[in-house]
Amino acid sequence: MRAAARPVAAQEGTGMFIAKVIGNVVATQKNEKFCGMKLLLVQPYISKGGMLESSGSSVVAVDSVGAGIGECVLFTQGSSARLTQTTKDTPVDAVIVGIVDTVEVDGKVLEKP
Amino acid sequence: MRAAARPVAAQEGTGMFIAKVIGNVVATQKNEKFCGMKLLLVQPYISKGGMLESSGSSVVAVDSVGAGIGECVLFTQGSSARLTQTTKDTPVDAVIVGIVDTVEVDGKVLEKP
Amino acid sequence: MRAAARPVAAQEGTGMFIAKVIGNVVATQKNEKFCGMKLLLVQPYISKGGMLESSGSSVVAVDSVGAGIGECVLFTQGSSARLTQTTKDTPVDAVIVGIVDTVEVDGKVLEKP
Amino acid sequence: MRAAARPVAAQEGTGMFIAKVIGNVVATQKNEKFCGMKLLLVQPYISKGGMLESSGSSVVAVDSVGAGIGECVLFTQGSSARLTQTTKDTPVDAVIVGIVDTVEVDGKVLEKP
Amino acid sequence: MRAAARPVAAQEGTGMFIAKVIGNVVATQKNEKFCGMKLLLVQPYISKGGMLESSGSSVVAVDSVGAGIGECVLFTQGSSARLTQTTKDTPVDAVIVGIVDTVEVDGKVLEKP
Repeated sequence: MRAAARPVAAQEGTGMFIAKVIGNVVATQKNEKFCGMKLLLVQPYISKGGMLESSGSSVVAVDSVGAGIGECVLFTQGSSARLTQTTKDTPVDAVIVGIVDTVEVDGKVLEKP
Repeated sequence: MRAAARPVAAQEGTGMFIAKVIGNVVATQKNEKFCGMKLLLVQPYISKGGMLESSGSSVVAVDSVGAGIGECVLFTQGSSARLTQTTKDTPVDAVIVGIVDTVEVDGKVLEKP
Repeated sequence: MRAAARPVAAQEGTGMFIAKVIGNVVATQKNEKFCGMKLLLVQPYISKGGMLESSGSSVVAVDSVGAGIGECVLFTQGSSARLTQTTKDTPVDAVIVGIVDTVEVDGKVLEKP
Repeated sequence: MRAAARPVAAQEGTGMFIAKVIGNVVATQKNEKFCGMKLLLVQPYISKGGMLESSGSSVVAVDSVGAGIGECVLFTQGSSARLTQTTKDTPVDAVIVGIVDTVEVDGKVLEKP
Repeated sequence: MRAAARPVAAQEGTGMFIAKVIGNVVATQKNEKFCGMKLLLVQPYISKGGMLESSGSSVVAVDSVGAGIGECVLFTQGSSARLTQTTKDTPVDAVIVGIVDTVEVDGKVLEKP
């Protein structure tokens, strides 16, 4: 039966991921705490077979480090996303906290997406 | 073996998503803090192949920005969902925080659902 | 390759869902804060193709509104689940917050499960 | 197209689940707040077709109720996992909060795993 | 219909997992609270069929116990990830809290990855 064959998978509901900034979102009518925030669309990437591979859903994240389109970033989700100066006490649940220079797996620097 | 072929996927347990308001939910008998709240059914959309594509489960979210049926919105989940005036200190775990004007990916404005 | 064909899916790790109460759970030996709580087994339902369809895993949720077996309810997960009087300061992570009267999608009232 | 056929699934990122204690984990070098804690490996079970069926990933959970290998337990995840005396203010994200006596679905007591 | 055959799966959005440290991430431009933190890439492993099997996505986690590449570790996600001295009040959502000596399932010590 197919169902039984499906692998059980560790699901990282929260966690921090590597992602590529792929776009941006504009919303004029919004919660006042979002004013001035840069809303970016990020696509998570994971390490797989010695490469960084696009995986999972694109998410909207607030920028807190000056990230731009096409950059490889580190983003945080969940309540920890409110622990930057930009997002303090705001209804923000995903924030970019760093720009990734290198990802190294098994002693090899992976090509960035 | 099939199981081994399944891609590992970054799971965004929380995060902020783009969604379309597809319906509403009426509950008369409810927690008193929900009184006066507008409960909307939202369907998440993700960016895929230059389009916004319906993805994942419909969720019930509280409106905090005057969103209506058919509108494309931004919603927040998790503890951050309690950081709007509408949802402060309530048992609410998903809230609409903005009405999306445009989503731009690779320099192209995507058609809204 | 199969893996590449798998759709990326917006994963709602937390959020509020519509569910049907399908059973109950009895635990005599338990954390003292659970004493007196009614532990129900709920099956989430989502809106799909103009119907409410069973989806995802059955979860154990604490009742805070007098819900009974067979009823269609609204439940909240995550830290927000501790924001009802019943669940305040308890190690409870899922709570029923309302009994659903109607779910309306595209102007049509969906049949309850 | 395969992607379109995949069911959207309500993802319970947090929530409370029924699980079976299947093993234990020993870690000597660890965060000091873990000292004295019993780390158990639990396998979630869900109600499906009138049975309790193994589902999802095995998780490491701290015991707070004297659970042992082979027992059917109730466990809580997320920030609520810190609301027991055993896990207060610790970096623990999953805790066993009860030992399950019975799970009843559709008026029938399910066989425990 | 394929959709109906898909197993409902308990999704552990948060929780604690066993993982292998597979790499590291360098980010020069980052949130100031990340300064001095060691960012490691960890691959979750679950117990399956008497073995530890790679499962789910690689995640970025902060080290709090002196873990190194190739080691088998225990990591915590969600708000609990901020409960170590290393990660207190930081926008960190995943932290390594222990180095795993043994994982025992059904009375058998599993081989570490």
